Amino acid sequence: MSEYQIAVIVGSLRRDSLNRKLGRAMARLAPSDFVFQPVEIGDLPLYNQDNDENQGDAVLRLKAAIAAAQGLLFITPEYNRSIPGVLKNAIDHASRPYGQSVWAGKPAGVLGASVGAIGTALAQQHLRNILAYLDVRTLAQPEAFIHAREGVFDDADNFGESTREFLQNWMDHYVAWVKQHAA
Amino acid sequence: MSEYQIAVIVGSLRRDSLNRKLGRAMARLAPSDFVFQPVEIGDLPLYNQDNDENQGDAVLRLKAAIAAAQGLLFITPEYNRSIPGVLKNAIDHASRPYGQSVWAGKPAGVLGASVGAIGTALAQQHLRNILAYLDVRTLAQPEAFIHAREGVFDDADNFGESTREFLQNWMDHYVAWVKQHAA
Amino acid sequence: MSEYQIAVIVGSLRRDSLNRKLGRAMARLAPSDFVFQPVEIGDLPLYNQDNDENQGDAVLRLKAAIAAAQGLLFITPEYNRSIPGVLKNAIDHASRPYGQSVWAGKPAGVLGASVGAIGTALAQQHLRNILAYLDVRTLAQPEAFIHAREGVFDDADNFGESTREFLQNWMDHYVAWVKQHAA
Amino acid sequence: MSEYQIAVIVGSLRRDSLNRKLGRAMARLAPSDFVFQPVEIGDLPLYNQDNDENQGDAVLRLKAAIAAAQGLLFITPEYNRSIPGVLKNAIDHASRPYGQSVWAGKPAGVLGASVGAIGTALAQQHLRNILAYLDVRTLAQPEAFIHAREGVFDDADNFGESTREFLQNWMDHYVAWVKQHAA
Repeated sequence: MSEYQIAVIVGSLRRDSLNRKLGRAMARLAPSDFVFQPVEIGDLPLYNQDNDENQGDAVLRLKAAIAAAQGLLFITPEYNRSIPGVLKNAIDHASRPYGQSVWAGKPAGVLGASVGAIGTALAQQHLRNILAYLDVRTLAQPEAFIHAREGVFDDADNFGESTREFLQNWMDHYVAWVKQHAA
Repeated sequence: MSEYQIAVIVGSLRRDSLNRKLGRAMARLAPSDFVFQPVEIGDLPLYNQDNDENQGDAVLRLKAAIAAAQGLLFITPEYNRSIPGVLKNAIDHASRPYGQSVWAGKPAGVLGASVGAIGTALAQQHLRNILAYLDVRTLAQPEAFIHAREGVFDDADNFGESTREFLQNWMDHYVAWVKQHAA
Repeated sequence: MSEYQIAVIVGSLRRDSLNRKLGRAMARLAPSDFVFQPVEIGDLPLYNQDNDENQGDAVLRLKAAIAAAQGLLFITPEYNRSIPGVLKNAIDHASRPYGQSVWAGKPAGVLGASVGAIGTALAQQHLRNILAYLDVRTLAQPEAFIHAREGVFDDADNFGESTREFLQNWMDHYVAWVKQHAA
Repeated sequence: MSEYQIAVIVGSLRRDSLNRKLGRAMARLAPSDFVFQPVEIGDLPLYNQDNDENQGDAVLRLKAAIAAAQGLLFITPEYNRSIPGVLKNAIDHASRPYGQSVWAGKPAGVLGASVGAIGTALAQQHLRNILAYLDVRTLAQPEAFIHAREGVFDDADNFGESTREFLQNWMDHYVAWVKQHAA
């Protein structure tokens, strides 16, 4: 395959999102044949099953972006020891209508950063359960629970050296996983 | 206390929601001093941390309803083996700003109904993890994973006999739990 | 590859274990190049990290069986809404000493049967979290939460017709998954 | 009540267990009317349902210790992102035979220490799900995921100052919770 489209789904809407910053820095670690495409989730309506047969433009756009991707990258904060509702809302939309989920069979990686030491580990555990149900093929190891302390990012929002080494290793595993599983 | 206000949070927005029906039927099993107040979550914006210091009217209304309640009742579908994003979004809003969560210390019960045999058990497991973090005091047993088969509801949306017996027992435990824990 | 050795780990020790019966019936659905080898876990000591550098014969035998396998099949009851301690104990042993886990990289499937309607779904959810950490590549779908009602097994402990159809489909997916991931 | 017996269940068997050390240091933070009784779990057989009607002496001793306690304290390592099998094995034993679980209704607290930054958070999340099923009333907040870095313990295995402050606050909440819920 000449190019791998990677749909990047960041679970936070805030302007200076730590996890969006993580996503941009991860893209810079990717090989040239991996194209990272951020996916917008902030303009989706709250999911309502009554709309399943009449999904709006934002939902159709989301589903098209996921369907077109060869791989997925979830970058999630931890809200209240789980994934944000805004992220789960997007996941719910793209899984519907019943039998027309766009998630099935896609390879995925999961990352997250937090100012706390838990580093989103609990959110990622819930997300893995959800992705397994959706038949997403999620990279197991390496895990990446990023505790966003001093030195993780430098002033230019690039990774500090040891973080970069750690996440380059993550990226190398992720790339191999996507290549093994891309349809 | 003369009256217990119970904030009922149904995790589905669809008009003919099975779980909203479950909530109405549960209210009819409650003693007269327990007043069940449905809480609207369908008009909340998607949570964005940038708005923490400027929460909109719908969020303030939600927080006020939770704050005023002596007990909480979560009635949740299972979407993709977890709670719906729309429910988590409401939970996230009412937990903010940091340090001003309205959830802490409230007694709660968790129920859910599904057309599938799992009966929302996996969604409820994730919800319990979230509620523990929020310092909500969640009734442990009886569990109620309602498989909404024939006989669970009759034509008038009342419970069939064995379901009513089972859920009356649940309600009795819930009432005792709220009375033990209401501030 | 001429033959695929599948290490079958049943999470129950009781003589008439429903899940051991499930395992034997699953073996009869496998293609001829898939050889199902039950793995004994009932003679393991309780895991104690002090023994990491001096693992006993039963532990070494377990690790050898896992290491030799091209795929894994976990068949688990649900005890107290999680996997049995006896199963987790075996998993813990074979993950040690640190850096010498035999689990990493193996493809796996997860099944479970219960007399209850939940069909081991909650135990399987916990097991998936554990296996992801161990870098086991776990088949996501189809899920198999077997409610062991009348008709699931016949008098000869073979599957009833609709159960057999369902689990043959599971086996077909499992076989393809193992072949895709076997080292 | 004049005295509260607290059954302390440490999830590790190793001689120099970090979590056993944590348990001993916690006991020194307790008020004089709270008596911490360590419960032995290392001599239990692997749980086998065939023995439910004929539980051995070690099991009966475990059940008696739990039954006699006014409160429970679980101190758990994290093995493979969940609780140790040895701990789950003890929990399984004391929940049987069916209908004769000794766990129901007991107030409990959950703590854990690890050399890693996650501090046993994932193990504790699984444990909470198990305890809820058992109708154990588990203190929700404060959470205590102890990252056992330098300064957490001093040379005499007492807590360093900021750790002691943090865990004294935990103990104060735990004591209040046990008093509210002790039968």
